[in-house]
Amino acid sequence: MDSIDRQDIATIMDALGRRARAASAIVATAPAEARDKALRVAANTLRARTADILAANALDMDAATEKGLSGAMLDRLMLNPARVEAMAKGLEEIADRPDPLGAVLERWERPNGLRFEKVRVPLGVIAIIFESRPNVTADAGGLCLKSGNAAILRGGSESFHSGRAILAALHAGLDAAGLPRDAIQAPPTTDRAAVGELLTMTRWIDVVIPRGGKSLTGRVAAESRVPVIYHLDGICHVYLDKDAEADKARRVTLNAKMRRTGICGAAETLLVHKDVATTLLPPILDDLIQAGCEVRGDDGVQALDARVKPATDEDWDTEYLDAILSVKLVGSVDEAIDHIGRHGSHHTDSIVTENAATAERFLTRVDSGIVLHNASTQFADGGEFGFGAEIGISTGKLHARGPVGAEQLTSYKYVVRGDGHTRP
Amino acid sequence: MDSIDRQDIATIMDALGRRARAASAIVATAPAEARDKALRVAANTLRARTADILAANALDMDAATEKGLSGAMLDRLMLNPARVEAMAKGLEEIADRPDPLGAVLERWERPNGLRFEKVRVPLGVIAIIFESRPNVTADAGGLCLKSGNAAILRGGSESFHSGRAILAALHAGLDAAGLPRDAIQAPPTTDRAAVGELLTMTRWIDVVIPRGGKSLTGRVAAESRVPVIYHLDGICHVYLDKDAEADKARRVTLNAKMRRTGICGAAETLLVHKDVATTLLPPILDDLIQAGCEVRGDDGVQALDARVKPATDEDWDTEYLDAILSVKLVGSVDEAIDHIGRHGSHHTDSIVTENAATAERFLTRVDSGIVLHNASTQFADGGEFGFGAEIGISTGKLHARGPVGAEQLTSYKYVVRGDGHTRP
Repeated sequence: MDSIDRQDIATIMDALGRRARAASAIVATAPAEARDKALRVAANTLRARTADILAANALDMDAATEKGLSGAMLDRLMLNPARVEAMAKGLEEIADRPDPLGAVLERWERPNGLRFEKVRVPLGVIAIIFESRPNVTADAGGLCLKSGNAAILRGGSESFHSGRAILAALHAGLDAAGLPRDAIQAPPTTDRAAVGELLTMTRWIDVVIPRGGKSLTGRVAAESRVPVIYHLDGICHVYLDKDAEADKARRVTLNAKMRRTGICGAAETLLVHKDVATTLLPPILDDLIQAGCEVRGDDGVQALDARVKPATDEDWDTEYLDAILSVKLVGSVDEAIDHIGRHGSHHTDSIVTENAATAERFLTRVDSGIVLHNASTQFADGGEFGFGAEIGISTGKLHARGPVGAEQLTSYKYVVRGDGHTRP
Repeated sequence: MDSIDRQDIATIMDALGRRARAASAIVATAPAEARDKALRVAANTLRARTADILAANALDMDAATEKGLSGAMLDRLMLNPARVEAMAKGLEEIADRPDPLGAVLERWERPNGLRFEKVRVPLGVIAIIFESRPNVTADAGGLCLKSGNAAILRGGSESFHSGRAILAALHAGLDAAGLPRDAIQAPPTTDRAAVGELLTMTRWIDVVIPRGGKSLTGRVAAESRVPVIYHLDGICHVYLDKDAEADKARRVTLNAKMRRTGICGAAETLLVHKDVATTLLPPILDDLIQAGCEVRGDDGVQALDARVKPATDEDWDTEYLDAILSVKLVGSVDEAIDHIGRHGSHHTDSIVTENAATAERFLTRVDSGIVLHNASTQFADGGEFGFGAEIGISTGKLHARGPVGAEQLTSYKYVVRGDGHTRP
């Protein structure tokens, strides 16, 4: 496949986009029962074909090992029976959820008798560009189908065989439901030029969603001519207010940082009101360090525990995605809000306080997609919100903000009914 | 001002963006009363300063006449007492509308006791890039302020003095309400490089809205790194079904084309079911031609009236914005839907029929922001929808679709309240 030249790739991708557009018109108006049936049959097909899928994955794993990919990369790529079952279960959970389409969001009548409805409709064609996790094929394909969209799934070359095997199961589901296979497609080549084509095919693609590390997301955001829904950074903060309850502060901080350090909702910076630093902070620092976390603090924090390393200016702008936490003392909730405004990434930020007015001030003024009161930033997850599966968490403000589930993959249209109405 | 070099412009625009961001945090949390007061005082200031504004406009008109601008351009640029009063009234109407901010769009609780709210918030900083109509300064500035956003208004060089005078009235309103003047700014230079800066200032600007002709919109859409809300084309269709009522078909068609030909909701193509062409179409063609409309038709249409000119392939993809209509016979509602899918611009399309099932098929399957049944496409207007003023009509599917009023200039955030909740 790698010998396909640039011109061929443009032709192939254009044809693929055209087929996706045609399929999107069919799935957009297919009944919810058909879309859900496709998801359930795909789930059962994944289960039934577990051996085939693991064999395909073994090819990818062998190639990746030969290429010398890191252990973390290999772990992301690796499938086992439990992970296949998790994909199947994920599809069934998507099928179980209410239909996001067709809902009348608003309905009104004008004095001239024209009747207006604002109706939820699919976005159309969604391209997902991701790295090596094979489960994205099932999750993203499933969410797009649930929301009546056609999907183009472009995974990394490392997961080529695994992705193909999973896609075949999705196609079995589409077949069983009488829906076109073109509703979920993958480019037939892993050439990077295919990504460039996807980012310029405004005629066929309505939105691009990159799922992966910052370099992938940054490239897509910088180059795409198609609108993008994405999250770039998750520099999440916990602020311990002077009216924080000590035990809640301790539990929330440890969980926000250490439950899982590699996810975008993990806390990266702890802000602490200086009036309570000496009382509140020492046991928290001890918890963190005992749990294996490196703590980098300003002078005030270093003075509280000899194991704290000095923080540099860069630390306040860093998403570690690791067992490292930067800690800073602030003089007021407003100083915390200001720090988050300058260094945060509009993702998820939490305040711990018993003072309701202080909490409201923080929740109102911190300009992030998710703001929490007395709760861990690790709740930044579509599942925890009750959305079912999610395709990512958006840090942009246009269209979708926070967890992006099936409902966020929709748009709306206005349906206007008259009786020969003309405008004066 | 024109001697400012590129580096200076980058510095000036960056400072302007930074000030807009700071002001946006203030207007975002300002009470509705303050925002509405600013709008009302601005309206009264416009009225009180009518003479000054007309004097400023005279400077622009003199320069434009000297430059040899077309009559249509001069008419767009020209202000008179009635147009100043219309701007003032527009601001008051915006003030009269309910506050779009703060509404809790959804509220739910999870089994673990976490309480979720989805709350409407401003987008942040909005840059409006427009051409010569001075009223955009008042309309766009007013809508942004109503929705708690900061605005950067970049008008064409032709309306520089008029824009300044109107902006001064908006600033008088902000002063009276105790809000920062930086909430509504204009670049101090008309250098085109300033537009380039606006399109790349992702740090300070959340969304760019171009308002003007296709060349402006196309440039902004192609170059902007900031997300864009825009409408490129308004190739609107009327489809006369075989079950159309003759009188409704006649009234709707004439109104959709000829009420005003230069607006984006004007019909450009008429599709007619072939079974009713000989009965339905002749009086409609006569109406149109009598009204001064040039009709370009396919062979079947030409056969009905000798005055019909031949349509070329290009006609089906053309937004005339003029007294010209292309007319085509189709064999079914599905052929009409297919034609609109291939040649339309996802803006506004209408069906005339007494058959409810046919109407539903059209309304569901035509993928446009506004679809109408037995009503003129000229209703594609925020005012006709009851939205009050509008900043434009979006043909994109992401975020805002159809008329963009104050409510469409908002985003949302999730506010999550717990009691020391940690994620298992």
